[in-house]
Amino acid sequence: MRIGLLTSGGDCPGLNAVIRSAVLHGIKSHSDEFVGFRAGWKGLIEGDYFDLTRQDVRGLAREGGTILGTSRTHPYNHPGGGPEAMAAQLEHHQIDGVIAIGGEGTLAGAKRLADAGLPIVGVPKTIDNDLRATDYTFGFDTAISIATNAMDRLRTTGESHHRCMVAEVMGRHVGWIALHSGMAAGAHAILIPEQGVTMDQLCEWVEQVHSRGRSPLVVVAEGFIPEGAEEALAGKGADASGRPRLGGVGEWVTQQIEDRTGIESRNTTLGHIQRGGNPTGFDRVLATRFGIKALDLVHEQAWGDMAALRGTEIVTANLSAALDGLKEVPADRYEEAKILFGR
Amino acid sequence: MRIGLLTSGGDCPGLNAVIRSAVLHGIKSHSDEFVGFRAGWKGLIEGDYFDLTRQDVRGLAREGGTILGTSRTHPYNHPGGGPEAMAAQLEHHQIDGVIAIGGEGTLAGAKRLADAGLPIVGVPKTIDNDLRATDYTFGFDTAISIATNAMDRLRTTGESHHRCMVAEVMGRHVGWIALHSGMAAGAHAILIPEQGVTMDQLCEWVEQVHSRGRSPLVVVAEGFIPEGAEEALAGKGADASGRPRLGGVGEWVTQQIEDRTGIESRNTTLGHIQRGGNPTGFDRVLATRFGIKALDLVHEQAWGDMAALRGTEIVTANLSAALDGLKEVPADRYEEAKILFGR
Amino acid sequence: MRIGLLTSGGDCPGLNAVIRSAVLHGIKSHSDEFVGFRAGWKGLIEGDYFDLTRQDVRGLAREGGTILGTSRTHPYNHPGGGPEAMAAQLEHHQIDGVIAIGGEGTLAGAKRLADAGLPIVGVPKTIDNDLRATDYTFGFDTAISIATNAMDRLRTTGESHHRCMVAEVMGRHVGWIALHSGMAAGAHAILIPEQGVTMDQLCEWVEQVHSRGRSPLVVVAEGFIPEGAEEALAGKGADASGRPRLGGVGEWVTQQIEDRTGIESRNTTLGHIQRGGNPTGFDRVLATRFGIKALDLVHEQAWGDMAALRGTEIVTANLSAALDGLKEVPADRYEEAKILFGR
Amino acid sequence: MRIGLLTSGGDCPGLNAVIRSAVLHGIKSHSDEFVGFRAGWKGLIEGDYFDLTRQDVRGLAREGGTILGTSRTHPYNHPGGGPEAMAAQLEHHQIDGVIAIGGEGTLAGAKRLADAGLPIVGVPKTIDNDLRATDYTFGFDTAISIATNAMDRLRTTGESHHRCMVAEVMGRHVGWIALHSGMAAGAHAILIPEQGVTMDQLCEWVEQVHSRGRSPLVVVAEGFIPEGAEEALAGKGADASGRPRLGGVGEWVTQQIEDRTGIESRNTTLGHIQRGGNPTGFDRVLATRFGIKALDLVHEQAWGDMAALRGTEIVTANLSAALDGLKEVPADRYEEAKILFGR
Repeated sequence: MRIGLLTSGGDCPGLNAVIRSAVLHGIKSHSDEFVGFRAGWKGLIEGDYFDLTRQDVRGLAREGGTILGTSRTHPYNHPGGGPEAMAAQLEHHQIDGVIAIGGEGTLAGAKRLADAGLPIVGVPKTIDNDLRATDYTFGFDTAISIATNAMDRLRTTGESHHRCMVAEVMGRHVGWIALHSGMAAGAHAILIPEQGVTMDQLCEWVEQVHSRGRSPLVVVAEGFIPEGAEEALAGKGADASGRPRLGGVGEWVTQQIEDRTGIESRNTTLGHIQRGGNPTGFDRVLATRFGIKALDLVHEQAWGDMAALRGTEIVTANLSAALDGLKEVPADRYEEAKILFGR
Repeated sequence: MRIGLLTSGGDCPGLNAVIRSAVLHGIKSHSDEFVGFRAGWKGLIEGDYFDLTRQDVRGLAREGGTILGTSRTHPYNHPGGGPEAMAAQLEHHQIDGVIAIGGEGTLAGAKRLADAGLPIVGVPKTIDNDLRATDYTFGFDTAISIATNAMDRLRTTGESHHRCMVAEVMGRHVGWIALHSGMAAGAHAILIPEQGVTMDQLCEWVEQVHSRGRSPLVVVAEGFIPEGAEEALAGKGADASGRPRLGGVGEWVTQQIEDRTGIESRNTTLGHIQRGGNPTGFDRVLATRFGIKALDLVHEQAWGDMAALRGTEIVTANLSAALDGLKEVPADRYEEAKILFGR
Repeated sequence: MRIGLLTSGGDCPGLNAVIRSAVLHGIKSHSDEFVGFRAGWKGLIEGDYFDLTRQDVRGLAREGGTILGTSRTHPYNHPGGGPEAMAAQLEHHQIDGVIAIGGEGTLAGAKRLADAGLPIVGVPKTIDNDLRATDYTFGFDTAISIATNAMDRLRTTGESHHRCMVAEVMGRHVGWIALHSGMAAGAHAILIPEQGVTMDQLCEWVEQVHSRGRSPLVVVAEGFIPEGAEEALAGKGADASGRPRLGGVGEWVTQQIEDRTGIESRNTTLGHIQRGGNPTGFDRVLATRFGIKALDLVHEQAWGDMAALRGTEIVTANLSAALDGLKEVPADRYEEAKILFGR
Repeated sequence: MRIGLLTSGGDCPGLNAVIRSAVLHGIKSHSDEFVGFRAGWKGLIEGDYFDLTRQDVRGLAREGGTILGTSRTHPYNHPGGGPEAMAAQLEHHQIDGVIAIGGEGTLAGAKRLADAGLPIVGVPKTIDNDLRATDYTFGFDTAISIATNAMDRLRTTGESHHRCMVAEVMGRHVGWIALHSGMAAGAHAILIPEQGVTMDQLCEWVEQVHSRGRSPLVVVAEGFIPEGAEEALAGKGADASGRPRLGGVGEWVTQQIEDRTGIESRNTTLGHIQRGGNPTGFDRVLATRFGIKALDLVHEQAWGDMAALRGTEIVTANLSAALDGLKEVPADRYEEAKILFGR
C-alpha cells in the first residue's frame, strides 16, 4: 500500500516515534510505501508531501517534535478542504490510506472524513491527557517528567529563602499535568480547572506550611480561573476563547498569596519547555506501539478507527470515542491528592 | 492507630514516596502514629524500630532508596521469626498494623503471616515488573528511563565507530526492562529470558543492520541464557540458584557477535545504576498513591490485602494474587517488538 | 577553632557543597567546631545560629540551596549591625572566624568588616558569573546546563511549528548566562546588557534563518533593554532600580519580532528553575574546593581574603578584588558568538 | 579555501560541535568550502570524503559522536600513508588545509605531517583530560556529569542496603575523571593510576565510613593497578599494552573489600556510557569555540598549531605542546581530595 502520514495540532514528544514505527513496520512487514504530508491537513489538502523512506525515520524514536511539521489547519474550513477535494487528492497521488496523528480536533476531523468515505485511521495525541478513549497518550509522561524536575529545582530556592514558590503548568481545560507533577513534586496545593478553590482556602494551606518552617509549593494549571480573577485575567489578555493567556494565572495567584499572607512569593511559568525535547522511555514505548497499531489498522482497512491504550494493552477504538467530551480529573483523584495539601 | 512500616528485598526508586504518603495520610487524616522497622522483617523480628514523624518523611517523594533500610531477611527462617513471635513483638510494642513493602518473596511472607492472624497489608515493589497482581509497580519506569538514556549514549559511540553495541540490563527471570528500554532506544535486537533466540538469528539481525551502514544496538536481559552458554556462564560464576552472575551474558553475547560476524562489538553492563537515585514523576505518583491506599487498607483492617494498579485506578488485591507465578513478557508483546528488529 | 558560616544573597547551586567541605575539612584536619548563622548576616547580627555537625553536612555535595538559609540583610544597615556589635557577638559566642559565602554585596560587606578588624574570609558566589576576582563561580555551570537543556526542548517545538522561539534567561547586569547557554544551544541571536542590538538587526537575523526554512532561536538576558523599550518595560513594572522586572524583556522582544516580521513567535521565561536544584559535577567540584580553601584561609587568619579560581587552580584573592566593578562580557567574546548568528 | 576535517581516535561528546562551528564560521565569514574525511586519517589517505554543507552541520551543537566517523588508523603506518602520499591526495582533491581533531596520537601525527609541509592544524580531544597543552578539552565535563549522576544513583542503593559501592570509571593512564566525579559525588575513597594506595589503606577508609553507619562509595579509575593485582588483572585479560582490560580493576577491588572487611560490596563499571550522548553546555561552548579558533588558524595558515584553552581564553598552542607527556593529576590535587576520604 501507499500510505500518507500527517501530524496536526500542537507538537508533542513522541510524534516522531509514531511516524518511525509505522513506517518501519510497513516497509518490513508489507513493503508499503510512505509519504509525509507537510504541516497537518494543509499538506493533504494542498498535495504538499514528500516520500518517507526508512532513512528519513532513522533514529526518530528519541527525537521530540515532528519531522512532518504541524499546523492547526482545519480539514473542512481550509480552502480546498472537505471530503470530495481531499479524496481527489488521495486518488491523484495514489494514496491508499492516511494515518492522522492529533488531538481532539484532529480526530474529530478524521472521523468526519472517514464517515464521508476517506481511508483514514487515527492516533491520539494530547500532552494534556484529556482524551477519554485512551488511558494515556504519549507526551503526557514527558511533560510530567519536565515539570516535576523543574519543581524539584524551585523547592531548593524556596527552602533557602523561606518563600512560597508557585509553578504554572500546562492544562487549559483539564488539570492532569498539574495533578501528576504536583503530586510527584510534593506540592502543598494544586489548582486545576475542574475544581474551584478559593484564595482563602489556598492561603490557609500556604500559611499552614509556612508556619511549620517550610516553604510552600503551589502548582497551578494555566486554565484554572480563580474566583474574582475572571476580569483581571481577561483584562491581561485572554485569547479569542476567553481563556486567560498563558502566564496569567500563575502571576495572579502569586500576587494574591503575597498580598494576603505577607509571605514572599515567586511565580514560574514553565511554558513551552513542557512540550518539546526528547520523549521519556514511557512515551517512546507508547508512541512506538501506537504507530505499529495504526499501520495494522490501515491494512485492516479499519477506517474511522484509532489506536488506544487500555491498561497495558494497545486496543482499537472508534474515532467517535475520542470525541465524547474531555476526560477531566475526577473528583476522587483530586480528593486523593488533597490528602497531602497544606498542614 | 499505631502503624509499623517495613521495606524488604532489593531497593527500588519510590520506596520512600510510599513511606511518606502513608505517614502523611495517617497523621493528617487519622492522627496515627508510625514506626519504621529497620532493615525489613529483621526489624520487626528483633523489635528494632524508630518513631517515624512527619519531619522524617519531609521531602521524601523525590528521594531514591529507603530510609528504613532493607534486607533479605526471611520472616519465617530468621531466628525469632514466625507468626507467634512476631505477633508478640507487635503486641509488646503496641503496634496495630503493619505495611510491608516488597516483592514476591516479601508479599508471600506477608500473606502467610496475615493468614496466621497478623495485621499486615502489602505494597508491591519490583523493579522487574514481574508481579501479576498489578499493571505496573514503581521503580520499573525509573529503570526504563535510566536504561533508555544510557542506550542513547551508547548509540552515538556505536555510530561514530561503526560498532555493534550491546547493553545488558536487569531482569533475572523476565524481560520487561529489556523489552521496554530496548523498544524506547530503537534496539535492533532484544534478548529476554522468556524467548529463545539463537546466536545465528541474532548475528543475522546484527549483520543486516551493519550492512546498511548502521550501528547495531543489542539489548540483553541479564537472565537470558543463550543456547550453548549454560556451561560457559555457569563456569564464569553462577550464583547459588544457577543463574549466570550479573555481567556474564552481555559479555558472552558480545564475544559471540564479534567472533561470528567480525564486527567490532562492545558490551556495557548497566548494573546497579538502574535501581538507584531519584524516581521519575511516573513512579513518584504511583508510589504516592500506593502509600495512600495502603494506609486506607490498614484502617479498613483489610489484612492480607495489598494495593495494586489496574489501568489508571488504584485497587485492592489479595496478597495471594501476587504469588500466582511471575508475570512474564507474553509472546505477542515480543512479536510486536520483533517487528523492528534487524534489517 | 570555632568557626561560623553564613550564606547571603540569592541562593545558588553549590552553597551546600561549600558548607560541607569546609566543615568536613575543619573537623577532620583540625578538630574545629562549626556553627551556621541563619539567613545570612541576620543570623550573625542577631546571634541566631545552630551547631553544624558532620551529620548535618552529610550528603550535601549534591543538594541545591543552602541549609543555613539566606537573606539580603545588610551587615551595616540592619539594626544591630556594624563592626562593633558584630565583633561583640562573635566574642560572646566564642567564634574565632567567619566564612561568608555570597556575591558582590556580601563580599563588599565582608571586606568592610574585615578592614574593621573582624575575622572574616569570603567565598565568591554568583550565578551570573559577574565577579572579576575569579574565572568562574559555582552555580553558573548549573544555570548553563538547565538553560541549555530547556532551549533544546524549545527547538523541537519551534521546528515543528516553524516558529521563532525566544528564551529569556537570567542576567540583570551581565550576559554570561545568555552567551554560554545561547552558544551551547545554537541560538541564532543572543541579546545581552553589554551590547546594543537594534530590533531591525534582530529581525534581520530572524528572517535570514526563517527564510532558510529553519526555526530561529533567540536568547535574551533579562537585563537587556532594547532601544525604545525603556518606557514600555518600566511601565510594565520595573523595580526600584529601574530594571525591567523579570519576564518583561522576553515578551517585549517576542512581540516585536512577530509584529515586524509576521513570523509566529513564542517567549519562554526560564525564571527560577535556573538557580535551584542539584548542582552539576563541575559546580560541585568547584564549590568543594572553595570550601576547603576557605577553611585554610581561616586557619591562616587571612582575614579579608577569599577563595578564587584562576585557570584550574584555587588561589587566594583579596576581597577588594571582588569589588572592582562587574565582570562584563568583553566585546571579543560577543563578536565570537556573533559569527554564528543569523543566516 | 577548501578545507578538510577529520576526527580520529575514540569518540567524544563535542566532536560534532567543533565540526559545526568550523564549517559555519568558514561559510559565513570566508565562503569556504568543506569536505569531511571518513573515519579519521583513513579517509584522507584513501581520498574517502564527502562535501560538508551547512545543511549537514545543522543542529550538531548538541549531538554526541561524530558525523565523520572515526578510527584509530595511523597516518604513517597505514598503507598509502605518510606525508608525500597524503600531500598528493590533498593536491589531487584541491584541499587547501586540514583540521585534525583528536587526542595525543592524532596530534602527534598531525605534528609530524605539518613539519613535513602539510597544511594541518589541530583541535585537542580527550575525554580523559590528559593533554598538557590545554586546561580542559571537551568531553571531559560530559564524562564527569554522567559519572557523577551514576554515582548519585549508586549511593541510594548503598545506603538502603548498608553496602559498599564501587564505581569503576574511565582513565587508563590518568585519574582526572575519577578525581572530579568522585569529589562531586562525595566519594570516601578515590583510586587513580598516579597514586599508589594499598588495599589496607582502602579498607581502613571503608571501615571508618561503615562504622559510622554510612555506606562507603569508592571510585576507581580503570587504569589503577592495585599492589598485588598486576598478575591477577593481567591474567583476566590485559590488552597488548599490558593494561588491565576495562572492567577488571573495579571487580578486583570490590572482591578485596568484601574479603578483607566482610562488608557486602558491589561494583559497577560505567563503561561506554561515559563517552557517548549529548554534550553538556560546558562542552558545547568549549567545542564551539575550538572550532571557530581552528578555522581562524587555517586562514592564518598557522600549520602545526592547535586551539587550546587557558583560563577562560582560547589561545594558540603549538602541536608540540600536546606531546610533552601526559597531564597527570598532581600530588597536591590528590591530597586536596584526600581530605574528604574515609572517616
